[in-house]
Amino acid sequence: MSITSELRRVVADLHRELTRYELVIWTAGNVSARVPGRDLMVIKPSGVSYDDLGPEAMVVTDLHGELVEGELAPSSDAAAHAYVYRHMPEVGGVVHTHSPYATAWAARGEPIPCVLTMIADEFGGDIPVGPFALIGDDSIGRGIVETLRSSRSPAVLMRNHGPFTVGATPRAAVKAAVMVEDVARTVHIARQLGTPDVIGQDQIDHLYARYQNVYGQ
Amino acid sequence: MSITSELRRVVADLHRELTRYELVIWTAGNVSARVPGRDLMVIKPSGVSYDDLGPEAMVVTDLHGELVEGELAPSSDAAAHAYVYRHMPEVGGVVHTHSPYATAWAARGEPIPCVLTMIADEFGGDIPVGPFALIGDDSIGRGIVETLRSSRSPAVLMRNHGPFTVGATPRAAVKAAVMVEDVARTVHIARQLGTPDVIGQDQIDHLYARYQNVYGQ
Amino acid sequence: MSITSELRRVVADLHRELTRYELVIWTAGNVSARVPGRDLMVIKPSGVSYDDLGPEAMVVTDLHGELVEGELAPSSDAAAHAYVYRHMPEVGGVVHTHSPYATAWAARGEPIPCVLTMIADEFGGDIPVGPFALIGDDSIGRGIVETLRSSRSPAVLMRNHGPFTVGATPRAAVKAAVMVEDVARTVHIARQLGTPDVIGQDQIDHLYARYQNVYGQ
Amino acid sequence: MSITSELRRVVADLHRELTRYELVIWTAGNVSARVPGRDLMVIKPSGVSYDDLGPEAMVVTDLHGELVEGELAPSSDAAAHAYVYRHMPEVGGVVHTHSPYATAWAARGEPIPCVLTMIADEFGGDIPVGPFALIGDDSIGRGIVETLRSSRSPAVLMRNHGPFTVGATPRAAVKAAVMVEDVARTVHIARQLGTPDVIGQDQIDHLYARYQNVYGQ
Repeated sequence: MSITSELRRVVADLHRELTRYELVIWTAGNVSARVPGRDLMVIKPSGVSYDDLGPEAMVVTDLHGELVEGELAPSSDAAAHAYVYRHMPEVGGVVHTHSPYATAWAARGEPIPCVLTMIADEFGGDIPVGPFALIGDDSIGRGIVETLRSSRSPAVLMRNHGPFTVGATPRAAVKAAVMVEDVARTVHIARQLGTPDVIGQDQIDHLYARYQNVYGQ
Repeated sequence: MSITSELRRVVADLHRELTRYELVIWTAGNVSARVPGRDLMVIKPSGVSYDDLGPEAMVVTDLHGELVEGELAPSSDAAAHAYVYRHMPEVGGVVHTHSPYATAWAARGEPIPCVLTMIADEFGGDIPVGPFALIGDDSIGRGIVETLRSSRSPAVLMRNHGPFTVGATPRAAVKAAVMVEDVARTVHIARQLGTPDVIGQDQIDHLYARYQNVYGQ
Repeated sequence: MSITSELRRVVADLHRELTRYELVIWTAGNVSARVPGRDLMVIKPSGVSYDDLGPEAMVVTDLHGELVEGELAPSSDAAAHAYVYRHMPEVGGVVHTHSPYATAWAARGEPIPCVLTMIADEFGGDIPVGPFALIGDDSIGRGIVETLRSSRSPAVLMRNHGPFTVGATPRAAVKAAVMVEDVARTVHIARQLGTPDVIGQDQIDHLYARYQNVYGQ
Repeated sequence: MSITSELRRVVADLHRELTRYELVIWTAGNVSARVPGRDLMVIKPSGVSYDDLGPEAMVVTDLHGELVEGELAPSSDAAAHAYVYRHMPEVGGVVHTHSPYATAWAARGEPIPCVLTMIADEFGGDIPVGPFALIGDDSIGRGIVETLRSSRSPAVLMRNHGPFTVGATPRAAVKAAVMVEDVARTVHIARQLGTPDVIGQDQIDHLYARYQNVYGQ
């Protein structure tokens, strides 16, 4: 089962980006990766300290969040991640944090307006708000999927809760989690002392197309 | 006296979480642990740099804060910790910080409203404010205990002073100290640009019950 | 080609200042250096993680941003850097970040007023705003150069985008990037609760002259 | 000359506290120490990176800021430090930073009100504002001394400039620099969403007396 061994290492390493960018505290937050070609995912266990999150601590679940491989109970958000993988076949990674600025927009139920070139680049428009949903059934997963389907954004701000992000790879989902907090903070700061300039839709489309197709190696 | 040796190490290590999450500066802030089955506690010494807080620097006091074992004078907050242990037998750890966002709510005498799922999970409702109390007698301890008794919250915001948190273990009290600062910050940010949505009491109860009983390993 | 080897190392090392001062996230932001006496510059490659930015990853381009030496595609901001070098012969280094406070002023299109001695010292007056410009042609470079030419400031806040800074050396440009974020933050904080005092033009001139001529070794 | 060797090491080490608590950027900020029994002080050189500030980089000046021993030019704030030592014989250490929250209060010319027990403990009342003063003569030093003489506070917020702090030892002055930024931040946050409660003068006096006489070892 070498593919899940490799993915456990990737997912464990990506959790270190959450602490590096101060997106999480204590044991909150989680990264998962779809196991390619299998109805499985690799995800963080529930309530384990980030200092102890080596590859061996990661768990493998099915796409309903039920434990398949590993010693520990899966993240309590496993059902939400699993729902996303079941309904969005293009998604290879999911991330959830309570990063403070993104969560503050979520607490007000207010989308982050596309007033920075960086937002146009990565999110292709405003970053949308998803519904309030209680943990324990499919509500959170459904809220994520329904919101993301009507947007180009890889991030959704779940009301009173925090951001969920997706990507073709788990690394791309982590990048979106880092960027959503960064732009949530910058737009918050801009709004504190006035009103940021708007970027036109044509310009947003131009920036989004270029960044998605030209940026990087 | 191996039990206090082990607790000295635990308490010393937990102080590192206060600096990791930037809840304290210089020598401010302190963690204590009840010595199980004894009328004793382990606590940080007064005015010692966090760089020098190894296990051997920790002191043991009775439950009035009087030194029993150790070379150094106990924290000037020892009497407040001791009062909590005398009056709340379920408490195994106490933490005090002046973390900036929680202390800012305390300075205004304003409870942190339960507008995030994370607040419902950990605190079970609004995070309450305790009275203004001067150091030097039982006032601080009494204010902590009276406020916590009428709340599910493990954290109290002492007016003009800062947060005190409790837990069944010292680690749980430190977790509450980390989380109270995190939610104090996020709700502050949310409130700067508007009014966060309210979470209904039934939903708070659902979240609190689940987190207290299901989360973690 | 030892001169570009040395410059690759200098430029790689300077990128570490961007992460040290939290001016950049993920792969955003870039530093470049003019190759003295040649129509060449050394710049960061596009979309590469800061952990992987050793000297060997840096690329050499001509002063239109076209790759001359190196394995990787140049930063997508290479054309803007190159435009600056073509039109400002006194510039030896250029830096671009999306640092949050400076970018917030840029999002509102509001210059940072010269209300701190540190702003007078380094920037010689208000820190100006440049036009909104789309990536892909000379617009960004032209906006930077036209704005800087009518100011003593080594920093320009490009609308909805972020700061660009210049210097006689790449290190001086990085210093300006660090300082523009610092003063953007301090003036933001000051303005949140009132109106900072103004510094008179004579005093600004005095401070600027002294800092430019006397400060340092 | 072993006493200045030892003080060079102490002063070099204390500069690391300025970076640890993010009170300074780049080469800004400085710590000095009076050489006991001599009309000399040890101070940071001008414009040297914090990475290069070992004991050997420190310089010794007379109490007019003129170089007596060392290879490098003294801090451009040496004259201000020297003025303090000449006029306040009880002072053994002086610190200057541009820490953002304290500098923001300074930019508005607004004292930090004594609304936290930590302010009463360390500063004994409101933290006062000093005059606007230009570098280059005795103005800054005179402004510091005149302001501190009419206050119990070891910190003064120099208008449009930043905080200066003093102490019986250089370590005590650094502690005051760390604490003035911490309380500047907490009171700023408190004031953003309302008005902090006031602490009565009797209570301030009680807290100040206790902290100055009982706290620590």
